[in-house]
Amino acid sequence: MLDKTLRMNYLFDFYQSLLTSKQRQYMELYYLDDFSLGEIAEEFEISRQAVYDNIKRTEAMLEEYEAKLSLLEKFEQRSNYIAKLKSAILKPEATPEEIMSVIEALEKLE
Amino acid sequence: MLDKTLRMNYLFDFYQSLLTSKQRQYMELYYLDDFSLGEIAEEFEISRQAVYDNIKRTEAMLEEYEAKLSLLEKFEQRSNYIAKLKSAILKPEATPEEIMSVIEALEKLE
Repeated sequence: MLDKTLRMNYLFDFYQSLLTSKQRQYMELYYLDDFSLGEIAEEFEISRQAVYDNIKRTEAMLEEYEAKLSLLEKFEQRSNYIAKLKSAILKPEATPEEIMSVIEALEKLE
Repeated sequence: MLDKTLRMNYLFDFYQSLLTSKQRQYMELYYLDDFSLGEIAEEFEISRQAVYDNIKRTEAMLEEYEAKLSLLEKFEQRSNYIAKLKSAILKPEATPEEIMSVIEALEKLE
């Protein structure tokens, strides 16, 4: 399991198009630009609690989308196969059959 | 552009987890099992018009999800690179560098 901040960064990357513009703004400031809840509250002239609630709800939404669509999970699986594929290509003794079996595993992930 | 039925089948495949169970049922009967609107209406004891409206709304939702997440588009791009990769692996004269450049293009799609 990834560290929480890294995981939220990834989930935000995959699902940000499904968020409202307000949700996107808070998440960007909090997770990408490392603003504190207090700083975001000041910026938007709302309470710290309102920012906190919005971010918590957005985090839960991102996790729900991931539970339904698994885009991060599939990305990680594809990345693993691509890494395997790269090292197989560079091994002089690898046969086309071995390489093909990695490609077929990658294809089956879809 | 894919034919409409084929495209809806693909979009349904990618985004069905984001639909309600009623939407899923109508779409399955209409697109996968080839029921007519009248047959679905009879099955659920509602009007043909209600089934039609529900399916049209669901089709629009699937297209909106695709406009935001591009899962079908990315799938098609990855499939193209995987096909290129397979034919490169089987060409005796392909160099590791050539093959690697296809893998890197595939990786950049993410």
